[in-house]
Amino acid sequence: MKEIGRRIQNIALLQGAMVKCIAVVLSGCGVYDGTEIHEASAVLVHLSRAGAKVQMFAPNVDQMHVVNHCEGKPTAEKRNVLQESARIARGDVSDLTKLDITAFDALVIPGGFGVAKNLSDWAVKGKEYTVQPQVEELIKGFHGVGKPLAMCCISPVLAARALPGCEITVGQDKECERWPYAQTATAMTELGCKHVNKNVGEVHIDVKNKLVTTSAFMCNAPIHEVFDGVGVMVTELLKLA
Amino acid sequence: MKEIGRRIQNIALLQGAMVKCIAVVLSGCGVYDGTEIHEASAVLVHLSRAGAKVQMFAPNVDQMHVVNHCEGKPTAEKRNVLQESARIARGDVSDLTKLDITAFDALVIPGGFGVAKNLSDWAVKGKEYTVQPQVEELIKGFHGVGKPLAMCCISPVLAARALPGCEITVGQDKECERWPYAQTATAMTELGCKHVNKNVGEVHIDVKNKLVTTSAFMCNAPIHEVFDGVGVMVTELLKLA
Repeated sequence: MKEIGRRIQNIALLQGAMVKCIAVVLSGCGVYDGTEIHEASAVLVHLSRAGAKVQMFAPNVDQMHVVNHCEGKPTAEKRNVLQESARIARGDVSDLTKLDITAFDALVIPGGFGVAKNLSDWAVKGKEYTVQPQVEELIKGFHGVGKPLAMCCISPVLAARALPGCEITVGQDKECERWPYAQTATAMTELGCKHVNKNVGEVHIDVKNKLVTTSAFMCNAPIHEVFDGVGVMVTELLKLA
Repeated sequence: MKEIGRRIQNIALLQGAMVKCIAVVLSGCGVYDGTEIHEASAVLVHLSRAGAKVQMFAPNVDQMHVVNHCEGKPTAEKRNVLQESARIARGDVSDLTKLDITAFDALVIPGGFGVAKNLSDWAVKGKEYTVQPQVEELIKGFHGVGKPLAMCCISPVLAARALPGCEITVGQDKECERWPYAQTATAMTELGCKHVNKNVGEVHIDVKNKLVTTSAFMCNAPIHEVFDGVGVMVTELLKLA
């Protein structure tokens, strides 16, 4: 009986060890001033299907600005990044200061202009940008203990600053209708990263840095192709975790 | 040569006829005062994968109120339903008054409290509710010309009022942790609808009324199960369109 008890306990421990805990960092709610909604939703669907346990986080700060998404223009409103992120998280989101790296197996940062406005100042300063210190510390923290990272769309710019010389993809480096933000790839190369051209359904895996990236809405692609690309990113991340 | 020309034209017409045009009606952005984000995203992913052409619409009116999604409490803010819906639509959303039924093959209304607050007053008045006249007219309009409708989560309450005696599902009629809103099913029955118990991955098809419904987040289910249920709804809708 003792032997059976021990076996059951071992199985339970094994199952426990197999459930990956993933921290997802949001930056608001809406492509032009926050997290890109469909990238975040795809991340959550794919993590859920894989049986991962997810906790969401966002900085408790004002957004850089609020954009009227009908007109694409800033308004006079003020909104809080954590509160707006809670729309995506259905209320279940925590202050980024509470993210304890030891409690998680991996970190995911979906894209959207919130990354370039609220998690860094890339949208304003371009190549002279800095990453919000708390976010930079987190990326370095997960990386420092060998825990993998996944970033899509514009989020790889965070890795480019936090992990100098890392390998990423933001899609393609030749601008065209399908790749309207291709100059980002050139900027990443100028910052000392290795940029690897990939299609929307593909990822690049920087094995050394355990960093998985995919273009998502950097590509002017149908939404189900973005969804599938994010799915590949999540699958590869979980393999590394 | 003329014959070949005619054949190519016929093929083009045939292909054109096969692309379904679907109108999606949004009610804001965020589960507690607008459209449930992940239900809308799932609708768009599944429609995109099926090759449907999508156009999004929302009423150009103030939200009933704005909810702080961290605390679940109303704030003093004012927000516009169309502008907030544009966050889900990545800017590509039109005023609901511009929805021309003749240009579409079917109508989809995702859930979220926006349906019960901005498209009707179900959230405030319960069984004494009315549907916003423009929305009621649209549902009756699609129905009147035999074009199918799909609604998930709380959206079937709109059909219950607009199409008396219709058959719907909002999930299960016995309240438990998994089905926290089960009393909605009873209310629908009291209104003269036939409520059919279904699980989150299933739909009910009211064949006579060409109405497809699924519970989505009426069920306390993992997000990928909601995603899949919405997928079944979209597939069944397109079969009817």
